[in-house]
Amino acid sequence: MPQPLFVVGHQQPDTDTICSALAYARLKQTQGADVVPVRAGDLNPETQYVLNYWDCETPALLEDATGEQLILVDHNEYSQTVSGARDADIIEIVDHHRIGDVTTSEPIFFRNEPVGSTATILTDLYDEADELIDSETAGLLLSGLLSDTVVLRSPTTTETDRTVAERLAATANVDIETYGKELLQQKSKLGKKNPREIVLGDFKEFEFESHHVGIGQVETVTPETVLDQREAVLAAMDNIVDQRGFDVLLLLVTNLLEGDSTAIVAGEYTATVAEALDTPFTDRTAFLPGFMSRKKQVVPPLEDAFK
Amino acid sequence: MPQPLFVVGHQQPDTDTICSALAYARLKQTQGADVVPVRAGDLNPETQYVLNYWDCETPALLEDATGEQLILVDHNEYSQTVSGARDADIIEIVDHHRIGDVTTSEPIFFRNEPVGSTATILTDLYDEADELIDSETAGLLLSGLLSDTVVLRSPTTTETDRTVAERLAATANVDIETYGKELLQQKSKLGKKNPREIVLGDFKEFEFESHHVGIGQVETVTPETVLDQREAVLAAMDNIVDQRGFDVLLLLVTNLLEGDSTAIVAGEYTATVAEALDTPFTDRTAFLPGFMSRKKQVVPPLEDAFK
Repeated sequence: MPQPLFVVGHQQPDTDTICSALAYARLKQTQGADVVPVRAGDLNPETQYVLNYWDCETPALLEDATGEQLILVDHNEYSQTVSGARDADIIEIVDHHRIGDVTTSEPIFFRNEPVGSTATILTDLYDEADELIDSETAGLLLSGLLSDTVVLRSPTTTETDRTVAERLAATANVDIETYGKELLQQKSKLGKKNPREIVLGDFKEFEFESHHVGIGQVETVTPETVLDQREAVLAAMDNIVDQRGFDVLLLLVTNLLEGDSTAIVAGEYTATVAEALDTPFTDRTAFLPGFMSRKKQVVPPLEDAFK
Repeated sequence: MPQPLFVVGHQQPDTDTICSALAYARLKQTQGADVVPVRAGDLNPETQYVLNYWDCETPALLEDATGEQLILVDHNEYSQTVSGARDADIIEIVDHHRIGDVTTSEPIFFRNEPVGSTATILTDLYDEADELIDSETAGLLLSGLLSDTVVLRSPTTTETDRTVAERLAATANVDIETYGKELLQQKSKLGKKNPREIVLGDFKEFEFESHHVGIGQVETVTPETVLDQREAVLAAMDNIVDQRGFDVLLLLVTNLLEGDSTAIVAGEYTATVAEALDTPFTDRTAFLPGFMSRKKQVVPPLEDAFK
């Protein structure tokens, strides 16, 4: 029996990663391929809400990808991918992040574009394949797009994202602003998370010239729920730095309504971070006006600073 | 004054690399960008023939890319790119090879597809941009496509390549077989090259798990012109291994008419190469029936063998 292909997004999956895995697996299935959407971790409340809303089953957890054939969506770095991916066969990548360290031995299909979401690119791939997008799939793609662009407000949003969102919303028969606000409210739900879970909830790891850097982000309409427990969060961050050997651990608390972030830092390289972000830190905390995107506004200057 | 963008292919440029740089620069210029096609090395006789045929100027040599903004075509590995590229800003990549080690700090446009030539993908990009391909540009793209696929005979050739080739040939008003044979004859011209120049003529370097591997390829309708001077070629290869510290140096002498290759090997890891290619070497030489593609038939097993 031939092996199925797994479509998998990044660890600490968000809505764009899960919805992209689902939508791309559907496209491939329509074309006759044996493709199964999977996830590399637990769903966040927003994504759970989206799957309920569109009456879609939760993808199975892929615990170990060793020896499997993988299609990566929404990431292209080993530090962010499912366990075992270094010993898997990566046969396709669709992403909208920086070009990471994944290499292959054979030529593969790799589509990376500087747009607001992987869902945006997948909509194009449906068009290129001449496959119709049904209303449920349109709802999933729209959810990924609106989640990643903070309802088209993030500086990562492009004209293409706006055009695609309008079209998907029409097919899915929802209003962008109304549905988007429901997503934002879900995204803000920190629930009963303790400080450690807050830091590691939406968390990405990077290797910058042998420096191990972790960047968590909390996107919320009520940043005070995190900032009011700053001391406990800092203690949790120091603890994570010790346990997991981070050179830098950064938490971005992003105010979705104001479009700014507060950064909290742990690790040995506070001065490097301050210089990279061009801002002074007071008590390991800095306010970053206009900062909403980890990918576009925080990762590039940090990587440069470690060169 | 804003910096121009440079479109550049790999070192030891071949026809697909040069024609892709020219065609992509034209597309970008049509869209109003300040883009200059450049090259990373000297032209081979086939490419010179193509530029004469289509009355096209030779792109300028880019000697050092430090501090420049680059669009890479037909490669995505630092070991194959123009000098200084590690300290340049890579803002786009269009390629059809394995995914290499180029990383970026920001999201960029990266289009890699497992087709026979970069020219094939560029034809798609013209379509996506709704730009017409004039007859001269069609001639350049067709030349890149036919050169890289050995006139649609290489195992890397896909159905897409065949369809695109038919269309480009119609626009360029040439016959694929007739024009293709002219290219093959030019490709075979080794001229007055000495053994060292033969080995390093069409040459690519790779890093496989810290092993420095060089693979040269001679594509010719008269392989005996190389094989008759095997001893001199081996001496030149040993010399290159010593001077440049290769763990493996492999030369593929590919018979374009028969669709097979003879491999000649130098360096410490002859046994690894024999195992990777699943063939015994006698006097450091092995015959490889059906082998025409360095990229698809030689690089993947060699990389695996060094894992």
